[in-house]
Amino acid sequence: MRFLSDNTGTVAPEILDALTEANHGLVTAYGSDPWTQRLDDCLSAYFGTAVRAFAVATGTAANSLSLATLTPSYGLIFAHEEAHIANDEAGAPGFFTGGAQLSLLQSPDGKLTRDVLATALDTQRVSVHTLQPKALALSQATELGTSYRPDELRGLCTLAHEHGLKVQMDGARFANSVAFLDCHPGDVTWRAGVDVMTFGATKNGALAAEAVVIFDRRLAAEFGFRRKRAGHLFSKMRFLSAQLDAYLADDLWLKNARHANAMARRLGEGLARIPGVSLAHPVEANEVFVGLPEAALRGLAGDGFQFHPWQAEDRLLARLVTAFNTREADVDAFIASARRHAGAAKERVA
Amino acid sequence: MRFLSDNTGTVAPEILDALTEANHGLVTAYGSDPWTQRLDDCLSAYFGTAVRAFAVATGTAANSLSLATLTPSYGLIFAHEEAHIANDEAGAPGFFTGGAQLSLLQSPDGKLTRDVLATALDTQRVSVHTLQPKALALSQATELGTSYRPDELRGLCTLAHEHGLKVQMDGARFANSVAFLDCHPGDVTWRAGVDVMTFGATKNGALAAEAVVIFDRRLAAEFGFRRKRAGHLFSKMRFLSAQLDAYLADDLWLKNARHANAMARRLGEGLARIPGVSLAHPVEANEVFVGLPEAALRGLAGDGFQFHPWQAEDRLLARLVTAFNTREADVDAFIASARRHAGAAKERVA
Amino acid sequence: MRFLSDNTGTVAPEILDALTEANHGLVTAYGSDPWTQRLDDCLSAYFGTAVRAFAVATGTAANSLSLATLTPSYGLIFAHEEAHIANDEAGAPGFFTGGAQLSLLQSPDGKLTRDVLATALDTQRVSVHTLQPKALALSQATELGTSYRPDELRGLCTLAHEHGLKVQMDGARFANSVAFLDCHPGDVTWRAGVDVMTFGATKNGALAAEAVVIFDRRLAAEFGFRRKRAGHLFSKMRFLSAQLDAYLADDLWLKNARHANAMARRLGEGLARIPGVSLAHPVEANEVFVGLPEAALRGLAGDGFQFHPWQAEDRLLARLVTAFNTREADVDAFIASARRHAGAAKERVA
Amino acid sequence: MRFLSDNTGTVAPEILDALTEANHGLVTAYGSDPWTQRLDDCLSAYFGTAVRAFAVATGTAANSLSLATLTPSYGLIFAHEEAHIANDEAGAPGFFTGGAQLSLLQSPDGKLTRDVLATALDTQRVSVHTLQPKALALSQATELGTSYRPDELRGLCTLAHEHGLKVQMDGARFANSVAFLDCHPGDVTWRAGVDVMTFGATKNGALAAEAVVIFDRRLAAEFGFRRKRAGHLFSKMRFLSAQLDAYLADDLWLKNARHANAMARRLGEGLARIPGVSLAHPVEANEVFVGLPEAALRGLAGDGFQFHPWQAEDRLLARLVTAFNTREADVDAFIASARRHAGAAKERVA
Repeated sequence: MRFLSDNTGTVAPEILDALTEANHGLVTAYGSDPWTQRLDDCLSAYFGTAVRAFAVATGTAANSLSLATLTPSYGLIFAHEEAHIANDEAGAPGFFTGGAQLSLLQSPDGKLTRDVLATALDTQRVSVHTLQPKALALSQATELGTSYRPDELRGLCTLAHEHGLKVQMDGARFANSVAFLDCHPGDVTWRAGVDVMTFGATKNGALAAEAVVIFDRRLAAEFGFRRKRAGHLFSKMRFLSAQLDAYLADDLWLKNARHANAMARRLGEGLARIPGVSLAHPVEANEVFVGLPEAALRGLAGDGFQFHPWQAEDRLLARLVTAFNTREADVDAFIASARRHAGAAKERVA
Repeated sequence: MRFLSDNTGTVAPEILDALTEANHGLVTAYGSDPWTQRLDDCLSAYFGTAVRAFAVATGTAANSLSLATLTPSYGLIFAHEEAHIANDEAGAPGFFTGGAQLSLLQSPDGKLTRDVLATALDTQRVSVHTLQPKALALSQATELGTSYRPDELRGLCTLAHEHGLKVQMDGARFANSVAFLDCHPGDVTWRAGVDVMTFGATKNGALAAEAVVIFDRRLAAEFGFRRKRAGHLFSKMRFLSAQLDAYLADDLWLKNARHANAMARRLGEGLARIPGVSLAHPVEANEVFVGLPEAALRGLAGDGFQFHPWQAEDRLLARLVTAFNTREADVDAFIASARRHAGAAKERVA
Repeated sequence: MRFLSDNTGTVAPEILDALTEANHGLVTAYGSDPWTQRLDDCLSAYFGTAVRAFAVATGTAANSLSLATLTPSYGLIFAHEEAHIANDEAGAPGFFTGGAQLSLLQSPDGKLTRDVLATALDTQRVSVHTLQPKALALSQATELGTSYRPDELRGLCTLAHEHGLKVQMDGARFANSVAFLDCHPGDVTWRAGVDVMTFGATKNGALAAEAVVIFDRRLAAEFGFRRKRAGHLFSKMRFLSAQLDAYLADDLWLKNARHANAMARRLGEGLARIPGVSLAHPVEANEVFVGLPEAALRGLAGDGFQFHPWQAEDRLLARLVTAFNTREADVDAFIASARRHAGAAKERVA
Repeated sequence: MRFLSDNTGTVAPEILDALTEANHGLVTAYGSDPWTQRLDDCLSAYFGTAVRAFAVATGTAANSLSLATLTPSYGLIFAHEEAHIANDEAGAPGFFTGGAQLSLLQSPDGKLTRDVLATALDTQRVSVHTLQPKALALSQATELGTSYRPDELRGLCTLAHEHGLKVQMDGARFANSVAFLDCHPGDVTWRAGVDVMTFGATKNGALAAEAVVIFDRRLAAEFGFRRKRAGHLFSKMRFLSAQLDAYLADDLWLKNARHANAMARRLGEGLARIPGVSLAHPVEANEVFVGLPEAALRGLAGDGFQFHPWQAEDRLLARLVTAFNTREADVDAFIASARRHAGAAKERVA
């Protein structure tokens, strides 16, 4: 009964099976195996354009290696103040780039807007005494469970490019956004102007696998050098690539994301109907941020539900994350428990 | 019929089973799972002393993170000129430390000697204009398939410590050395003076798992920060730890290493009996370096055998690596093919 | 008639004379000369405690090298949001440390308070997923021309030390604060708990010379390595040290600072008496931040006065900086011009 | 009577005068002063092509900043094993680049040859597991006091460019080479293919001033960012630029270099005539490397002469460095003393 995160769960059976299936025969190490060899093709087909794809095992590696490929050590990277790279990766972008920094921007629901970026670009003092603006980092889905629409991304990327910035996208929950938007993966990436993205699988059923997808293929060689040098090139690479292979095969990515999204939507709708309970952000992926009386939060915890408290500017929220294997019964139990505890809290107030 | 490397192979069935077994239930991410929680205890029991152990997925990560914990950016690291960190990790130690450098030493059979280190320490110019000696990096087994004896290590570590150096050990093939020496793992690590080591499992049957074992436990917190910051902390950490768990359980590490070593020994002995063929180094782990007429090398390749050519100072060798699942029949076939081609080469010369 | 900065000016004649005097004879390079050899003694006498002192040529070098000696690459450094290291050094702390970051705090008049720091330390999320708090960076005088009192510094340093932070002080305008406070230099440094400071001379009459003063002398060797490695060890070091020597001799530092401070005070008092004109911060060193009607700012510029506009949160200020050689007549001319233009602006409004 | 180094000496009077002359009036800080503004023009005229020039204060800064502009963190830099960047700059290239490394090559007299570089490029293993060759670093004059001829440089640069390497030149003693070769400065730099060079003045009479000269002007902006970020942009920049201005004016650079060279030649010729004494390298700048009996070395030291012992592969040499202000009488006294002590040493042997 955990809604802590989508990285606390198990591996999707299809992906575990793929590991077993890959476990025969001798192949050349470090990527000269059939699974890795077809990775570019698989992801090119997926995105509808020729890409270079590199498998790594963690989201932090994927984000930092791609940012280091896009920005020099003296670079400034614009990002939302809620971004994972800003809050949960121990300063990894600074380590991988040799000291580049983030400029954090505020806007509602975890989504940067063209206006917010425009203001930042206009007011950012730039001289030889400052870092040099070099990249824009976006997350799809965002850290607050919302999703950029294609035209929102196009606006941001166009503005970024006009100012000489490259655009990176953290797609740790990319499948959830595509499932929510019901769009083509290309619509919210290269067609909108994204230069490099991380295509996450771990949170949506893989054991540990993310693909860095390079739309601007001139950057590919450098990325490869950086990956190796940072210890992120696996010798038995087939076991990374096979995960991604299975993740893309038979639209497993979409099936898993749709389920997780459906559970989040059910959770959000159920909670929103409880008097005194409100959602902090629209539910546009597999996360629900909900405001509950503190007594209700304690009550839910007492009932054995697990979730992260989330400190918003003005109130404490509960962050609830669903996954490819979240059960409807657990969602309904959570809602029932919340309703009971919220009601009790209200009575006490009355 | 590949003798290319021990990282081209499959995963030992016991370890794949462990992944399947670990794949149930929700656990907390990033290491608060039962498998990871008992890692310290497992490796403390293994080494016979209280250690801190950190799982990572690649040898380059293990080596570089441990070196970065032992040496500042202005540090000099002594290592054998054949060391993996010097030749096969794309300068990773320089990246992880922020610019520390290696001072490479020569000595036979890939093994540093106390005398060679003593001379290096005596003749190394040290001033504010130079890097500062800070660490000694050893490999057990060495890159040339040899193994340090406990007293050899003690001599090296004592000298290093007397000069204020910390000692790191690359144990990518550690199990093979322990199996060859038939000693206690502690005898060739902490009892000899090693401060931090990487305990490799990937080359001996794991999918992708190495433990960094910290004997000087004051260094543990810093190591943890560095691991996360470099993107080497897994969210679904249980699947790294479960590999190491299975690797240590029922002495799988030893069983696998003994088999690989036996195959290497058989290969070495068989080849050494062929007229005109000679071993370049004693076979003390799972690698054989053998001098063969060039025509014989081509002949073996023509028969479908795969191996790395290895440029020694004066001649071209073949490097043959065995693994936990190398088959006796393949070894014997290789010997027979070598005998045939070496004989033919000899006749041509005559 | 420039009030742009105290680094736009000339070199004090005493310091230029010292260069000429030092220009005879052969001495050993890189600091084995008499001027450098007595630097530790000179600054120990100045501060009233045994220190190690290292000369460098720029404030950015002094700040970044000292911060790199105090904080690891995974460290977090608390500083005021107006700090020079945050806004005017092109991310140098990130470069020198290998990726450490600043956590910027807000408080009035450019001065951190114990409460603000306490709140930051309490609310800063710290885990393996974040940077680790390692240092507090203070400026004396501050970027807004104010000065910490000894007890304010003691409170900040004590709190920092209790939380395991080291304390660095940017003393680019240190002499101005000591002159303003009329205190002993030790009172606002080591006696208050500062671990390492930069003792600036360039802004107060030197050509290019700052001393990094290390109160915690165990850090001295590391600092020396870092200085050389960053290209900040001069071969003809005598010419750096001789500047500092002359700066300390006959209390030149104090004479110069007192004059600059007196000019700033005169400027501030004169401007404050003009109707509609207000000082944004107390004048406690050699800087004046003044709010003037925009038309008056334009008028002053038209009269040939030069100064930096300074964007405060709610209004545009003029920053006026005085120096050791600012002339009273120029100060008075500025005040007269300001009065004239401010009056005109007022009439236009009426 | 010191022949220790050309950086132990005084400042040429013309340069000290230039500092005094520059010491009037207020100018804008950080390079918007007349001296700095004309630096590009001065050095463009000097080299006979349009260049960008950046003043810094030390040779280590000049070398490392220029190398960091030419090579990424994963780059490999080819250099002679005697290069200053390899032996005397505390690993600065690794720090400034974020971990790039040197590949050191051997060849006689401190001069790389096209053949040696060709062999290195051919035999250097390059793959994703290695650093990537990115730059060639040359020194003119070399560390052993020899000078590349224009065609030698053209051969090296052409080969380097064919392999995708950029070429950097350490010109700490550039004036000495140009004086010796009696060529145009362009002949041994951009016309030969050098991309970026450091134009040293400190060893030839400046207080502390080197110009980084960028022939490939697209690299200039990046260089400027890196200089500031490393603390090498001076606020009172006029005093750096004025040194270079005076150094170029009235061919002071050439006058000084010719004198130093003449003294070195006189020293070399005088010593070479002593029986049992031999020069280790041709004297093609302002350094003499001479083999003397050890007793003679001791005798010279006893007579008060100072010089660096220099450990060559097979014997101990004395390194003697002359400067713009070395006196003929001291040279002759050294020769006489050497003759006396060498004669005595010979008699003892007999």
